[in-house]
Amino acid sequence: MCKELRPSGSSLNGMLELRERSGLARIARLSTRHGTVETPALMPVVNPANLIISPKDLAERFKVSILMTNAYIIHRSENRERALQEGIHRLLGFDGPIMTDSGAFQQHVYGRVDVSNEKVVRFQEAIGSDLGTALDVFSEPDDSRETCQAAVEETLRRCEEALQWRGDMALVGTVQGGLYPDLREACGKSLSEMPLQVHAIGGVVPLMEGYRFADLIEVIVAGKKGLRPDRAVHLFGAGHPITFGLAVLLGCDLFDSSSYAKYAYDGRMITPWGTLKVSQLKHMTCHCPACADAEPKDLRENVRLLAEHNLHVSLLELEEVKQAIHQGILWEHVERRCRAHPALLEALKTLRRHVDFLERYENLVDGSLFYTGPESIWRPSVHRFRRRVLQRYSPPEAQGLLILPEAPRPYSRTYAGILQRLYRKAKAHAVVKSAFGPVPIELDGVYPIAQSVLPRQLDVEVIEASEIFLREFVRLGHFAFGMLWEGEETLEELAKRAPGAISLDMDMARARAIADHQFGAGASKHLLRGKVEHVKSRKTGKIRNVYADGEHVLSLRARDGLYTLKLAGGVRLHKAFKSPRLRVLVSEESAPFNLQGKNVFAKFVMDCDEEVRPLDEVLVVDDADNLLAVGRALMNREEMLAFQRGVAVKVREGSKPL
Amino acid sequence: MCKELRPSGSSLNGMLELRERSGLARIARLSTRHGTVETPALMPVVNPANLIISPKDLAERFKVSILMTNAYIIHRSENRERALQEGIHRLLGFDGPIMTDSGAFQQHVYGRVDVSNEKVVRFQEAIGSDLGTALDVFSEPDDSRETCQAAVEETLRRCEEALQWRGDMALVGTVQGGLYPDLREACGKSLSEMPLQVHAIGGVVPLMEGYRFADLIEVIVAGKKGLRPDRAVHLFGAGHPITFGLAVLLGCDLFDSSSYAKYAYDGRMITPWGTLKVSQLKHMTCHCPACADAEPKDLRENVRLLAEHNLHVSLLELEEVKQAIHQGILWEHVERRCRAHPALLEALKTLRRHVDFLERYENLVDGSLFYTGPESIWRPSVHRFRRRVLQRYSPPEAQGLLILPEAPRPYSRTYAGILQRLYRKAKAHAVVKSAFGPVPIELDGVYPIAQSVLPRQLDVEVIEASEIFLREFVRLGHFAFGMLWEGEETLEELAKRAPGAISLDMDMARARAIADHQFGAGASKHLLRGKVEHVKSRKTGKIRNVYADGEHVLSLRARDGLYTLKLAGGVRLHKAFKSPRLRVLVSEESAPFNLQGKNVFAKFVMDCDEEVRPLDEVLVVDDADNLLAVGRALMNREEMLAFQRGVAVKVREGSKPL
Repeated sequence: MCKELRPSGSSLNGMLELRERSGLARIARLSTRHGTVETPALMPVVNPANLIISPKDLAERFKVSILMTNAYIIHRSENRERALQEGIHRLLGFDGPIMTDSGAFQQHVYGRVDVSNEKVVRFQEAIGSDLGTALDVFSEPDDSRETCQAAVEETLRRCEEALQWRGDMALVGTVQGGLYPDLREACGKSLSEMPLQVHAIGGVVPLMEGYRFADLIEVIVAGKKGLRPDRAVHLFGAGHPITFGLAVLLGCDLFDSSSYAKYAYDGRMITPWGTLKVSQLKHMTCHCPACADAEPKDLRENVRLLAEHNLHVSLLELEEVKQAIHQGILWEHVERRCRAHPALLEALKTLRRHVDFLERYENLVDGSLFYTGPESIWRPSVHRFRRRVLQRYSPPEAQGLLILPEAPRPYSRTYAGILQRLYRKAKAHAVVKSAFGPVPIELDGVYPIAQSVLPRQLDVEVIEASEIFLREFVRLGHFAFGMLWEGEETLEELAKRAPGAISLDMDMARARAIADHQFGAGASKHLLRGKVEHVKSRKTGKIRNVYADGEHVLSLRARDGLYTLKLAGGVRLHKAFKSPRLRVLVSEESAPFNLQGKNVFAKFVMDCDEEVRPLDEVLVVDDADNLLAVGRALMNREEMLAFQRGVAVKVREGSKPL
Repeated sequence: MCKELRPSGSSLNGMLELRERSGLARIARLSTRHGTVETPALMPVVNPANLIISPKDLAERFKVSILMTNAYIIHRSENRERALQEGIHRLLGFDGPIMTDSGAFQQHVYGRVDVSNEKVVRFQEAIGSDLGTALDVFSEPDDSRETCQAAVEETLRRCEEALQWRGDMALVGTVQGGLYPDLREACGKSLSEMPLQVHAIGGVVPLMEGYRFADLIEVIVAGKKGLRPDRAVHLFGAGHPITFGLAVLLGCDLFDSSSYAKYAYDGRMITPWGTLKVSQLKHMTCHCPACADAEPKDLRENVRLLAEHNLHVSLLELEEVKQAIHQGILWEHVERRCRAHPALLEALKTLRRHVDFLERYENLVDGSLFYTGPESIWRPSVHRFRRRVLQRYSPPEAQGLLILPEAPRPYSRTYAGILQRLYRKAKAHAVVKSAFGPVPIELDGVYPIAQSVLPRQLDVEVIEASEIFLREFVRLGHFAFGMLWEGEETLEELAKRAPGAISLDMDMARARAIADHQFGAGASKHLLRGKVEHVKSRKTGKIRNVYADGEHVLSLRARDGLYTLKLAGGVRLHKAFKSPRLRVLVSEESAPFNLQGKNVFAKFVMDCDEEVRPLDEVLVVDDADNLLAVGRALMNREEMLAFQRGVAVKVREGSKPL
């Protein structure tokens, strides 16, 4: 990844702009020649020769913003000439963006495809497709490594050659590679190096048809690892809402559905939980416009009505996903939806294998974290907390720590409450062995500890994991531990005997631990150098602002228990840590604006500390490492370097205010 | 429980008739003077002095079939006289059934209530309430045992005395008892002995407000254990759909909601997953009539619209619950919904404590069993399978059994597939150590083994439980075991050395095991006495009919892998097992009809084997234990003895056909 990879063209067709995010999941705007589409978006697949719902209806009644049609099929049909003469938009009667497929899926279905890459790409360009697809080579899940490798190579060659025929059309390059993650990743990387606009993940329909969702996840993740993060990613053939949440969570932006019609012809009703034979429907369980005035028998007798229902619920699921991203509860949403089928639950369970990758894109989330099952302790935000405790935490006194078991608690209290109670009881510095791993008492207010809600009865799996996390922590070896497993009554007593039973200036200990947790081991020494003063809220009694030697260095956010970095704090961190730590390096064009407090746009970012995560506090610097501003990153390094549009750092204070 | 408990009155007002069921959950018809209500039903609470949605709208636009209003509040309001003159139905402008509350909840809110039991019961009767409530004494969750005991005694006294004032009104008796399950159960029992029509579970609002759902479950279960099963049960104050599924699963039939309005006034939007501040709503995630043409800002600005949404989604959740009962997937539905909040998940986890009680009411379920998490292995249907294996299974050769670990498998195969593969490999009689406990290979087609779908990666909790179940099985001690833990390649080899490596007549072994599993240990000896012939389907090659000495004794259902009992089989079982085993004893009035193949109605059942479960095959006998018919029970003993309406046994063949 480097700056030169950015497409040189100035066309906005196919360009993506990030609006809101939750890790890899994102709400974005995809620009096309026929208008802008909010993603994630579902593209109903329409066949002009067989319309169950007309494109006009799709636009007006279903508020569909983008369609998909198969150029290969049109190319072979009677509509070919009309499409060439009138263009695909007039042929379909749809003013919005249209994506076209090239026939690769027909290769899967019929074993062959009777068109050349050149023909189908030129045809797509000629009929005015907004997003046209190069003819990729479909790999079957059971294909050998050699076959898949050859398919990838041919796919890449065709994408490369298609560039010459695309004209103004945004070109879609499809990731293939069968079930070989390294091939998928390499294919994604190579495609990323071409001046394409949109990517697709292909060869996945057989996985979805066979409920091989764990394999599907491997395929999506491998593709995403290879692909640049600034391009929209389409998951080919995913038309059932059962997978939408999971796929969006992994960074897919576009879906296409012919399922709404296919299922209807087959008498099946789509729900977010699967599919129901409409003959089994007795009670009307849906409010969608198709169902609003219908009885079960209407859906049984009217295929079109059933297709409309199927499309309505599919579109609604994406609205639910977007709302979940907006609320910061996408993980809860997906964990729930993965209970739709045991194969989806299995897929969810395998996500922990990719937690390091997911964590790189994870933003800090507002609001509560709800535990839904043993999978929840592997969320990227929880993994980050554990990792930062391991790497960045050091206790206020090196001689000892108490380790406390969790106490039973009512739901009105979160971890913070327990920890504080234990602290008062034990009068000792303590680490609680929690479901999320060891929690030093000073970090009791930090996300996700204070914001999480768990059942009292933990799953055995979580208890075992907690033990393992604690051992990892203990293995660091720079503490002596007094283990406490008894009930609350004896805590004080034990605390006296325990090696780490010390009284702390809790405000100071907390400030140190949070600063290290957030900015890196040792950050607190510099940020809190000198005489430290904590200004508390008169209303809540909680710390709001931190001054060091009279300088306002930090403010504490109640929401996530982390600091907002003030310019004075930024100056201290800038002195203490060498480049590239915490830095976002901007180009000369951008520097004067950032110096005066303006936001950093992604296209002006030259480099960035690779430890920076979305919503982390950062230092904005120029080429000579002059501190220009402090602010909050909205992207990680990969994204800052890739995106052409959008804000990379929300600047809080420039070094030279206006 | 005995026949005399049946209410002697002939009025149908308040009477319940079972239509469909899933364990304690049921779809039923509640008769009232103002028409029949399908339960489970939600009663919107209306206050005539402050109508946010008019009763006319509720009936016409919301299809609400029953309302609730507070008699105590009307009694103290300006509407008192009008209510007395015109009746409550004209006052509210609602033709359907109306339930009235008595003021007990106001005691909880205000600490006192300014009305006597006599006054409020007489008032309810006078205004023509269909279901009127005696003034129960509300116990707070933290009340002492003594306080709760006194509250129960006073509640019972008031119900008893209220009988004299009720007239034709159906009287609701409320279970109290705080958090003391024994008090709750005893209260339920005493109420069941009174000629009341409907019951309620009271004192639960503070539990729901505090997310104490595990406590809520204890309270509901204790109440249900005490209450007769033929009366509708109302869960007082449960108006948020988050709890509907769970409460219905535990046998609640009626809910009341003022939440739809209260939440709306507070700017909160109800969803099946909880509550959302409407200020957080950005994407329209609902299709309900209120949301159909609305933008988020409309819901923010229009309280009435928000209240309508809240009511629509609450009503829809009950339709989903009913559809889930109809499809036999209520457990899946509830397990999913319990992921709405960690406190609900905790409640779900505590259900296993009551699995013996739940199993008594569990019917055999059609269709697949989807695993949603470690809680799934504690479903009553799975518990029943384990219990019957422990109590009823004996291996074809006593000298040995192989115990096989589960093999990895694709989703297209269920347990049956694995078991058969293992059997073919091992050429030995085998028991598989499955997630559900030990499964003898002959039972591989029996529900839930052949019908279940699980993720490949099992939760640690399930693996541990599986180990424990196996030990229980081994502890029976009448087998010698050869344990197999190696990979598939060595199975055959090991089988040769294993003590139980025997070749079986698999059809016969299967027939024996299924017959014992279904009808009791030893049943197969009698059912399959003589020369046994298995008639297989020409299409599927599977066994359809079983003949013994030329008599058609059994048919095998493909759906659940269990037998349908033919009359000849019934005759054999009747001879082999003494009364009351497998019997349903009917009165003289009923006998001649059943003899000719007519169904058994509940009101004619005099007694029943207490091991009979809904959908079990049974023998219908008269007082002298003459076999009248064979058929399928639709109820368990408690229900047969309690219900006044509905079919107790669906008779298949009478001893004397017409």
